[in-house]
Amino acid sequence: MTTTTAPRVSPQTLSNAFETLATRFQRDFFTSQSQREQHSHTTTWIAPQLPDAVVLVRSVADIQDAVRICARHRLPIVPFGAGTSLEGQVNAPFGGISLDLREMNRVLAVHSEDLDCVIEPGITRKTLNENLRDQGLFFPIDPGADATLGGMASTRASGTNAVRYGTVRDNVLALKVVRGDGEIITTGTRAKKSSAGYDLTHLFIGAEGTLGIICEMTMRLRGIPQSIAAASCSFGSVKGACDATILAIQSGIPLARIELLNAAQVAACNAYSKLTLPLTPLLLLEFHGSEAEVAEQSSAFAEIAKDCGGGAFEWTTRAEDRTRLWQARHDAYWAAAAIRPGSRPMSTDVCVPISRLADCVSETEHDIERFKLIAPIVGHVGDGNFHCLMLCDVNDPDEVARGHEFVHRLAERAHRMDGTCTGEHGIGQGKQDYLVPELGPEAIEAMRAIKKALDPNGIFNPGKIFPLP
Amino acid sequence: MTTTTAPRVSPQTLSNAFETLATRFQRDFFTSQSQREQHSHTTTWIAPQLPDAVVLVRSVADIQDAVRICARHRLPIVPFGAGTSLEGQVNAPFGGISLDLREMNRVLAVHSEDLDCVIEPGITRKTLNENLRDQGLFFPIDPGADATLGGMASTRASGTNAVRYGTVRDNVLALKVVRGDGEIITTGTRAKKSSAGYDLTHLFIGAEGTLGIICEMTMRLRGIPQSIAAASCSFGSVKGACDATILAIQSGIPLARIELLNAAQVAACNAYSKLTLPLTPLLLLEFHGSEAEVAEQSSAFAEIAKDCGGGAFEWTTRAEDRTRLWQARHDAYWAAAAIRPGSRPMSTDVCVPISRLADCVSETEHDIERFKLIAPIVGHVGDGNFHCLMLCDVNDPDEVARGHEFVHRLAERAHRMDGTCTGEHGIGQGKQDYLVPELGPEAIEAMRAIKKALDPNGIFNPGKIFPLP
Repeated sequence: MTTTTAPRVSPQTLSNAFETLATRFQRDFFTSQSQREQHSHTTTWIAPQLPDAVVLVRSVADIQDAVRICARHRLPIVPFGAGTSLEGQVNAPFGGISLDLREMNRVLAVHSEDLDCVIEPGITRKTLNENLRDQGLFFPIDPGADATLGGMASTRASGTNAVRYGTVRDNVLALKVVRGDGEIITTGTRAKKSSAGYDLTHLFIGAEGTLGIICEMTMRLRGIPQSIAAASCSFGSVKGACDATILAIQSGIPLARIELLNAAQVAACNAYSKLTLPLTPLLLLEFHGSEAEVAEQSSAFAEIAKDCGGGAFEWTTRAEDRTRLWQARHDAYWAAAAIRPGSRPMSTDVCVPISRLADCVSETEHDIERFKLIAPIVGHVGDGNFHCLMLCDVNDPDEVARGHEFVHRLAERAHRMDGTCTGEHGIGQGKQDYLVPELGPEAIEAMRAIKKALDPNGIFNPGKIFPLP
Repeated sequence: MTTTTAPRVSPQTLSNAFETLATRFQRDFFTSQSQREQHSHTTTWIAPQLPDAVVLVRSVADIQDAVRICARHRLPIVPFGAGTSLEGQVNAPFGGISLDLREMNRVLAVHSEDLDCVIEPGITRKTLNENLRDQGLFFPIDPGADATLGGMASTRASGTNAVRYGTVRDNVLALKVVRGDGEIITTGTRAKKSSAGYDLTHLFIGAEGTLGIICEMTMRLRGIPQSIAAASCSFGSVKGACDATILAIQSGIPLARIELLNAAQVAACNAYSKLTLPLTPLLLLEFHGSEAEVAEQSSAFAEIAKDCGGGAFEWTTRAEDRTRLWQARHDAYWAAAAIRPGSRPMSTDVCVPISRLADCVSETEHDIERFKLIAPIVGHVGDGNFHCLMLCDVNDPDEVARGHEFVHRLAERAHRMDGTCTGEHGIGQGKQDYLVPELGPEAIEAMRAIKKALDPNGIFNPGKIFPLP
């Protein structure tokens, strides 16, 4: 974890920059301690690092002016959406401003025939879907938290639906990005595919705000499926659940969601959501399609589950039953947190080839025992991606040290199994040590060269993804 | 179109470089006119520009050594696969070597549980699929030509299956790329998704060999569907065919292929493939799934087609009938070429939002008439992407001028309709004039900055995508 306290701009420069920002942004410029605290990172055990000020932007022109003022003074800019990132992405290790984009939350256009829409980056996933529902459309990426779309793009988020609909990466058609001199880069058109030059769209997706500020997004949408069925199935072992998943994907069942909860997480959900699920690994599933398709998919999966040692396969298309089941999954974070009141929940994720997932989860469960940690596991098992929600007493240095060692070994385990240290949370500050072991120094040299090429003054979210040179 | 004759290395440098290359590569180093001609561009009317020599590589170490030798002498390197690119990508406007990767055509690993494989870049699509068939797997991208996978990645190719399976972009998990000093950049792991740093994988996909040489690829695979059905349906107008496509996609029918042939192309196919299709716009379709799914998809589409003025809807799951139908589509290029023996076929493509496709095709048909050209149209209509196969007498300067004007207006039309000047052929040399109008100067400045950052000596395929500065 990076804990650098490296160069900040001088107090005189800061004061000059503040004067210009205050004049330009008036009541949307904040320097109060409470605003600065709200905009630094609090959802994990990474220590908050406050920005010097907060600028609330309401338009593309606002972003451009804020960037130009900051560029002139070499003041760092940390973009801020809903603040739900998990690896310190919104911290300000070198001060500067937090650029709050939440007021830029409009849907600018919906093209229902083309299944796309144009939005501002500060809109949240739920608000967007509320806007689309009337037209029978939805945006399929669901990372759990009600994140902003700009934030989701910046961390290359995904979540429970990715097994069918892909990640954010697969659902952005084009971006507009404010670069370091305030001008705007357009990365694509509304065409569904393009071979026109370098893929800038995908370069900005997952860049964690280090290459520019996303100011407009063109997103792919889907039609709301005619029928949705939910199902659950308990297994005697993680391996059984993973085997069923592999077979289902191999045989082409278009699973919309397939989530693994380990026994510890099932116990937490039972307690929190007043369920009576068996205390063994559980798969929660969702099927989308026509009524006939959904029925066929469900029965095909039920067969597979039986062959893999699954218990009773329960499925339903009734909205209230579906909601009850998936509400429990959505509340998994809170359910886990409730196991140990007063602890700081710390969510970490890795992603491995699906053939290695059962091994990876089992070894991780052994480590949790070995290090005497409390860390229920939930997994987007169709993608080979899983999370440990560690509940740590941050006032116990020994436990914190064990937690760090556990996370370190988890990343190493993912690498050993041909996987990645993060499937959907990003590198931020928390995973920087694992990037070179994962890809080698050459890839990181290429990333640094790109950073320097597109952000020569180094003002965009410095110290994220990789430490300053 | 770029016809620059800018700086080449001096004859002395070339002679020194050749000596080193000849020593290192022996019989795999060629300077004969015939080899050089075979490796410059011939599939369009862009004039061939020969490399100074050809190096046939057989291993990653070969690529590394070739790159190091060229880098030392600042000699351009033009990667070469099957030579099926359509916008001059393999031309050598500044000389240098053509790096022929066709002998690097091995499948290095197949991970059937994970639905992925690791391959060398010189393997062709058909050879790869022959290798996979025994395991019930296939690689879904089919651009028509039996291109190499490295070439397909480099031009961000797609083709008839993209409506269901995505483009190459969506089916590459990771790349290894030889950079300008001969070292290797690894862009990802075998994990299905990742948030670890900048998306270098997608930066190299579509870079047309201008940022480094792809030397290894990890690809996503799919299970061969249990059942495949083919269908055809004639329409009174392009608009009827497009409306049916839009409705089918909106209602979530997972079409595996949906191809539009305009009346001129149907006539060409009738003549070439001895068919008796009505001389009106035609949709050719393919459905993948279980037997029940395929039947349901087909009947759902038949309903929609009827509502949109479609004629008789014929479908079949019999392999020989499917093959006959799709063979006609695959032979569309040759069928068109046969209309005018002796002409040079020149394929150009654009891609627009699907709601604009009918207008775009209709206006284009008017232009074909107006400019007195012969140019049948086939379209990957589910993506809004279509091709005009212009059959031009290249010895008639007036016709060539009209052809250029037609292509120019086609790109402008795509831009006016919020689309791209190329959906799957790339920019190469032929479409450079349209990149700034499409994305604006800022995007191209960003691309150039990235090119300079990753290829500071400018040795990788110079003069492609954008002219030299």
